[in-house]
Amino acid sequence: MKALVFDKRLKLVLDYPAPGLKENEALIRVKYAGVCATDIEITKGYMGFRGVPGHEFSGVVEACGIPGLIGKRVTGEINLSCGECDYCRRGLRTHCPERTVLGIFKKDGAFAEYLTLPVDNLHVLPDEVSDEEGVFVEPLAAAFEILSQIKVGKGTRAAVLGDGRLGLLTAEVLRLSGCSLTAIGRHEEKLAILKAIGIETAIVGEGMRGGFDIVVECTGRGEGLSTALDIVRPRGTIVLKTTVAERNSADLNRAVINEVTIIGSRCGPFKPAIAALKEKSVDVAPLVSRVFPLEEGIEAVSYASQNGVLKVLLKVE
Amino acid sequence: MKALVFDKRLKLVLDYPAPGLKENEALIRVKYAGVCATDIEITKGYMGFRGVPGHEFSGVVEACGIPGLIGKRVTGEINLSCGECDYCRRGLRTHCPERTVLGIFKKDGAFAEYLTLPVDNLHVLPDEVSDEEGVFVEPLAAAFEILSQIKVGKGTRAAVLGDGRLGLLTAEVLRLSGCSLTAIGRHEEKLAILKAIGIETAIVGEGMRGGFDIVVECTGRGEGLSTALDIVRPRGTIVLKTTVAERNSADLNRAVINEVTIIGSRCGPFKPAIAALKEKSVDVAPLVSRVFPLEEGIEAVSYASQNGVLKVLLKVE
Repeated sequence: MKALVFDKRLKLVLDYPAPGLKENEALIRVKYAGVCATDIEITKGYMGFRGVPGHEFSGVVEACGIPGLIGKRVTGEINLSCGECDYCRRGLRTHCPERTVLGIFKKDGAFAEYLTLPVDNLHVLPDEVSDEEGVFVEPLAAAFEILSQIKVGKGTRAAVLGDGRLGLLTAEVLRLSGCSLTAIGRHEEKLAILKAIGIETAIVGEGMRGGFDIVVECTGRGEGLSTALDIVRPRGTIVLKTTVAERNSADLNRAVINEVTIIGSRCGPFKPAIAALKEKSVDVAPLVSRVFPLEEGIEAVSYASQNGVLKVLLKVE
Repeated sequence: MKALVFDKRLKLVLDYPAPGLKENEALIRVKYAGVCATDIEITKGYMGFRGVPGHEFSGVVEACGIPGLIGKRVTGEINLSCGECDYCRRGLRTHCPERTVLGIFKKDGAFAEYLTLPVDNLHVLPDEVSDEEGVFVEPLAAAFEILSQIKVGKGTRAAVLGDGRLGLLTAEVLRLSGCSLTAIGRHEEKLAILKAIGIETAIVGEGMRGGFDIVVECTGRGEGLSTALDIVRPRGTIVLKTTVAERNSADLNRAVINEVTIIGSRCGPFKPAIAALKEKSVDVAPLVSRVFPLEEGIEAVSYASQNGVLKVLLKVE
């Protein structure tokens, strides 16, 4: 099959072996895949990954042990857990220490014609959710994870820091909680997407308002945590989404002095993400910057890493 | 009056002006003062402080507007808040942005014959609490702060990292919650104090058990957070007590991936601390390494900063 393969560098391979089907797995023909910041990091060596990157996708089930699933349009959860350890038994499958992760850790991913995933990981896409929208379920679920970790609602003064892909999705999701929301970023043109749907926006800088109860840090930058600490109130909460090589380490003293809570936040629940797309309470269409065919995947990843670009999709079939 | 004064360097001043009494303040004759890690940092320039350091004390009220208080043995809360801002009105006086802090920020402290504090900050010491023990109320309150921030109880697997002054006090306090507790440090002889009262102890290193629900980081060292992240379980909680100039900043990626909560923790409630000393549920006597007269304060601070030394007291009268 055709696949983008990372092995020291990213390359297009025309005869990469199609994945073999293990017990309880489904074979999925990929329709669209999304390029995520993690994919860009992987092409720089993150996680020491070798193989097919890509973990945001929509596709069609071509083979699996459950006949009713064949032919269904699906997306899938990316953590392949053991199902038997303490974490799996307590419902914390995304934290299974034995897990592999689609396109990120020891498991070939979605930048290819086919992928496999356990049937339990699959979610059928409703008719109202297009193939392109299906790619957004995984990052949207990561935004919904925040609502499962902290209380946000009417009266909460919340800020989202960062106007990249995850920042915009997170702002759209937090808005659903009815909180008083400000989206803070560096790019007028990206923030305009949020402004158009009635979200208050601000350019990061000295004029920023402070005193937020909750700040979600989605900047993808080393200085993001420092900015979050500038604008969170004492005893407030920072939700940390950014993983990055270098941060200002002394900033944590401010977290101690102001008794700030910092909560790490990663993968989230697919169901509310799919429901939000189905009900059109979240609009992801303005986030698509460009669609490339799989064969132009190397160019697509390079394009996605440019400043100002939002979501880049790979069209596989 | 006699006072230890920091102004570029620490010096003993024999004729330092006694503090003037403002409205609602009490004049307190200091009996004992404790040397804290923060005092040692102040003598290295921390907070840009100039004046009399010291914030852990016991003393006797010599003058104030409330006649019933005169002659009482007291200790006092160290944050002098404005009483009028949003934080003060919501009961978050320790986070008042206008606050000064006894012996730490714009307010002369306890390494002197006299100090002043607002009457509202004072707590009368019961007869069962000695002058020496009274010095421990403030750091003990900082340990009790943890119990007001997170749920700890039967079934909680908790670890205290660090066997310095605060680490030992924290372990004694966490034990009161009935949790399953391990105190982890570097010094057999300090951990022996906890072992003697039935607390499980371990030397930091490769053999450490992991999977703790809660880890309280009291190491005072840059690598403490990294060790805490090694032994906390996914979705567990780290209570961060250490303020330090340098930390490994990349470690926060592990907090994101494992969805760990990090809670900054500072000053705490005096009442449960005084009650614990009164009821003898916490024993601070083994923590006193040495008592110096105020006149030997420079030597005392130097001695307190040596490795292996626990609490150093200054006897003022």
